[in-house]
Amino acid sequence: MKYCSNCGSPVRSLIPPGDTLPRYVCDACTTIHYQNPKIVVGCIPEWEGKILMCRRAIEPRHGLWTLPAGFLENHETTLEGAVRETLEEAHARVEISMLYALYNVPHINQVYLLFRGQLLDLNFKPGAESLEVQLFDERQIPWEKLAFRTVRETLKVYFSDRRSGSFSFHIGDISPPQSSNKPSNELAQATRLSERI
Amino acid sequence: MKYCSNCGSPVRSLIPPGDTLPRYVCDACTTIHYQNPKIVVGCIPEWEGKILMCRRAIEPRHGLWTLPAGFLENHETTLEGAVRETLEEAHARVEISMLYALYNVPHINQVYLLFRGQLLDLNFKPGAESLEVQLFDERQIPWEKLAFRTVRETLKVYFSDRRSGSFSFHIGDISPPQSSNKPSNELAQATRLSERI
Repeated sequence: MKYCSNCGSPVRSLIPPGDTLPRYVCDACTTIHYQNPKIVVGCIPEWEGKILMCRRAIEPRHGLWTLPAGFLENHETTLEGAVRETLEEAHARVEISMLYALYNVPHINQVYLLFRGQLLDLNFKPGAESLEVQLFDERQIPWEKLAFRTVRETLKVYFSDRRSGSFSFHIGDISPPQSSNKPSNELAQATRLSERI
Repeated sequence: MKYCSNCGSPVRSLIPPGDTLPRYVCDACTTIHYQNPKIVVGCIPEWEGKILMCRRAIEPRHGLWTLPAGFLENHETTLEGAVRETLEEAHARVEISMLYALYNVPHINQVYLLFRGQLLDLNFKPGAESLEVQLFDERQIPWEKLAFRTVRETLKVYFSDRRSGSFSFHIGDISPPQSSNKPSNELAQATRLSERI
């Protein structure tokens, strides 16, 4: 941020009186511009033991597989956002059954909220941001071609829960990739605070 | 938003190509400025059947009672944010035990995440944003002097869960206050999507 979105004057970064963190502050109009994490809402669309995934047609991670998910918009609920993203990315209609996972991704200022949803029909097809959409059972999941660590972690606990016969809410943190010569998809080191917090 | 925070030129609101919603767009530097909901993180601090509440020293709702809560900051996890807010507002140290409730408040673009936390000691005192902090048992809760409907809803399900002997995660929506002659604290009409979604 370089300029005040309220008056167009240059801003500077300082800790306002009574605050503890630096903010962008406008000397001209005194506006304090707070910057906060964004929410990513998504869905695990289910159909007869399989789940629907999307191959990304956009950057980042063009060509890799993901669950339908995207930024929550103003004026919508998290559940509405998950349903909308599933419709936009996979033209798939779902009925949400539960909030399944929350992942903190603090190094990129994101919080993921992933819901389980039952597909209402099989009339799915790629949306504008997807190259293809496909149902996968556990053995077919393209583990080496997943777009995001949040998706990897979600699928790991999902299939683990399915094998145990009981789905419970999961919460965890995704830490930044560490510098390493390993391929980045080997760096999926989410620290689960608690399996059932 | 009136000016581009990147280059200081005036912005205008339009639906960018490929998008579905109006955004503030800068013609000069082509930046699209997305605006998204904020996360409020908070805590129900527990001690021997009582919970710790704060009486607000700031607007909005100066003088009314709330749970320690505030906006999630960049670079922190939701759990870290809840612990920080509890420390800032009540000088209280807690150990988080579970994510207890998520409330969508779409008309003000907020998502509340409220955790249960065990107080580690009784050395609490008002923080800069609190007039007083106090432990309450259920019969003492100042129901007529609560600051926010999210707090009211959280406390309602919390004490209901306690009576039933089982705490489970809750998710719900808080709808905008309706025009009415009733006092605003009579308008706590959260629609719970599901008691256990």
